[in-house]
Amino acid sequence: MMDYLISTLVAAFPSTPQLLLTLLSPLLTFLLTCSMIPRITPYFLKARMFGLDLGKKGTSTESVQVPEAAGLVAGTVFLLFLLAVSASQPPSLPLISSLFSILFMMFLGFTDDVLDWPWRYKLVLPLLGCIPVCSCYSGSTSILLPSPVRHIVYASPLSSPLQALLEFVGVVLDPTSPHGLVDLNWLYFVYISLLSIFTTNAINIYAGINGLEVGQVVIATLFVILHSLIEISAGSLSTANHVFSLALALPFLGVLLALLRFNWYPARVFVGDTFCYFAGMTLSVLGIHGHYSKTLLLFLLPQLANFLYSIPQLAKIVPCPRHRLPKFNAKTGLMSPSEYAPGKSNLTLINLTLRICGPMREDTLCAVLMGVQALGCMLGMFVRYGGGARIFFEEEK
Amino acid sequence: MMDYLISTLVAAFPSTPQLLLTLLSPLLTFLLTCSMIPRITPYFLKARMFGLDLGKKGTSTESVQVPEAAGLVAGTVFLLFLLAVSASQPPSLPLISSLFSILFMMFLGFTDDVLDWPWRYKLVLPLLGCIPVCSCYSGSTSILLPSPVRHIVYASPLSSPLQALLEFVGVVLDPTSPHGLVDLNWLYFVYISLLSIFTTNAINIYAGINGLEVGQVVIATLFVILHSLIEISAGSLSTANHVFSLALALPFLGVLLALLRFNWYPARVFVGDTFCYFAGMTLSVLGIHGHYSKTLLLFLLPQLANFLYSIPQLAKIVPCPRHRLPKFNAKTGLMSPSEYAPGKSNLTLINLTLRICGPMREDTLCAVLMGVQALGCMLGMFVRYGGGARIFFEEEK
Repeated sequence: MMDYLISTLVAAFPSTPQLLLTLLSPLLTFLLTCSMIPRITPYFLKARMFGLDLGKKGTSTESVQVPEAAGLVAGTVFLLFLLAVSASQPPSLPLISSLFSILFMMFLGFTDDVLDWPWRYKLVLPLLGCIPVCSCYSGSTSILLPSPVRHIVYASPLSSPLQALLEFVGVVLDPTSPHGLVDLNWLYFVYISLLSIFTTNAINIYAGINGLEVGQVVIATLFVILHSLIEISAGSLSTANHVFSLALALPFLGVLLALLRFNWYPARVFVGDTFCYFAGMTLSVLGIHGHYSKTLLLFLLPQLANFLYSIPQLAKIVPCPRHRLPKFNAKTGLMSPSEYAPGKSNLTLINLTLRICGPMREDTLCAVLMGVQALGCMLGMFVRYGGGARIFFEEEK
Repeated sequence: MMDYLISTLVAAFPSTPQLLLTLLSPLLTFLLTCSMIPRITPYFLKARMFGLDLGKKGTSTESVQVPEAAGLVAGTVFLLFLLAVSASQPPSLPLISSLFSILFMMFLGFTDDVLDWPWRYKLVLPLLGCIPVCSCYSGSTSILLPSPVRHIVYASPLSSPLQALLEFVGVVLDPTSPHGLVDLNWLYFVYISLLSIFTTNAINIYAGINGLEVGQVVIATLFVILHSLIEISAGSLSTANHVFSLALALPFLGVLLALLRFNWYPARVFVGDTFCYFAGMTLSVLGIHGHYSKTLLLFLLPQLANFLYSIPQLAKIVPCPRHRLPKFNAKTGLMSPSEYAPGKSNLTLINLTLRICGPMREDTLCAVLMGVQALGCMLGMFVRYGGGARIFFEEEK
């Protein structure tokens, strides 16, 4: 099995040195990031970019200034590593456009950490930052309609106005397609853009305890890598896309692990919006250029759940305090759910987990939530390769 | 003449709508930037990113908080405009790599405004940011040797070790070339990278009075545009490169003029390192992808002169105070040279101008220095199209 994977990898990569560099890249970026974080963070403290750890309130470390936005270091190492590697290769439009979009979001994230943008900017700017990635996307723009939707479009009283409307906005219908394939055309790019807005903001709102922002992305990235390795060794038609995805995902994993080391309880750095935007866009780019954007969403089920569960508070249907992170009890050293009203805990997956499992230490809580992420990803893998595969993923080739 | 220019422009551009959009772009980006600066700068003040105007000391406005780093708004409008335009066109490697390098430098500039990097980072990072532009540079990598240098290389006692050394580092010599053309090969990319470091830092040190950072770039950009129009109407072999350059230079001019309006005496905003790095890299990209990097240097003669004149202070051969900007006399309202020692004014072109022309108001001084820039550019034009043209510019085709 291992031999077979190695031989298919050697065959899939343009050259053996490039394969070796890709395989070594997590180690290289891990070491680089670990050495740069302590060098760069003093500049953050000097510029008064720090936070106090709300999860340490009442302990001796509550007034320690923790540098903010260390995601800047991780993101910059990641980009510079890929730039340095790319210097030895012919210029590649997918790579440069990916780097542009990632840099653009990291830039937006850092300006947000400094200037604190209002929501309207945070939602509109990622749309524009996606343009380079969208404009050199070369895969299919078709999706499958689930059968109930197919029925409404092709065989219901609504069919004819609905078909006219869909065709008016540019969708290409093909009633003869055995799987109900429809070509979304430019609307596919709207979907891609929304995906990027989702990934960046979903990570941002699933946060609040040491290590969680980075930990969740580490797990998702491990499954992204596993998925690409499976596809390559299965001789997938989009092997080249998965090789591209691996060349980004492996150095990404390295910077993530280094950042996790410094952000793990008790956190020596905070990662900032800079990290959430950088990491969210990187995941999106992997999914888009790897042609597995739907599979990517399956690896982000806890984020999706946390987002849906949060909606009543985000939409201000129930009160939403400024911070929704769990309450820390300095006497017991444990965290318990925070509440927006007596007896009603804030609507986040973190608080829900604490309600189900009972109070626990911050690092245990983070480990449990990373376990939840891994379970979610395994469920995603099951959907991807289990019974639903042929129906939902036929066109992701 | 005008008719001829219009007809050659129409022929040179891929389509008439694209030509019209390019011609209208300065107006569009000017209006956009003018409307965005007042909306965004309050966030700078809230984040305590502001400066006090040292040139207003002793007047009623000395304690007004002027927002810093407004170059961020100009640069972002410029990039977003080009992104939005590019969405309607097939993806272009030169364009995306240019946007990447410009964004990278703007990002570096903004982090510098916030975190205040040491010099070693400021010098190394631009080298890496240039990689995308370098790796898709498709022009010649040859340069002409001036005749004395040619003599040393080909017909002096030093010839044979020198030729061996040059060939060892990858330079391709061709003694039969009538103009002494040598192919610098990868060293050409070192030259391009150094050009980018020069443009970004040269603008940064030729600053200190309201309007000058932007004003100098406005004049240089006007000459860059004039040069491209001349080349296009002369049917230059690199017409496509000049069309590319115009499509960037014209919207660039629009954001510059808007920024100048807000930065002109008395300045309502400061532009920050963000602007110097953004504008310097944009000029470099124009020169590199337009294939006129040497002509570009001719349009930056005052910056070159200011840099050379500053070297004794930059190298700490003579004392260098933290600020070298001219002294403001609140009684007369005039500026006069600042000094590093009694009777010895700081070594900048600004102080030199004041020593030659006598004390003057800040806005008059800025206008005079913009006039100097225009004279320098005209001299550059004369060198470019006058007698030296055939000798120095033969290969810029």
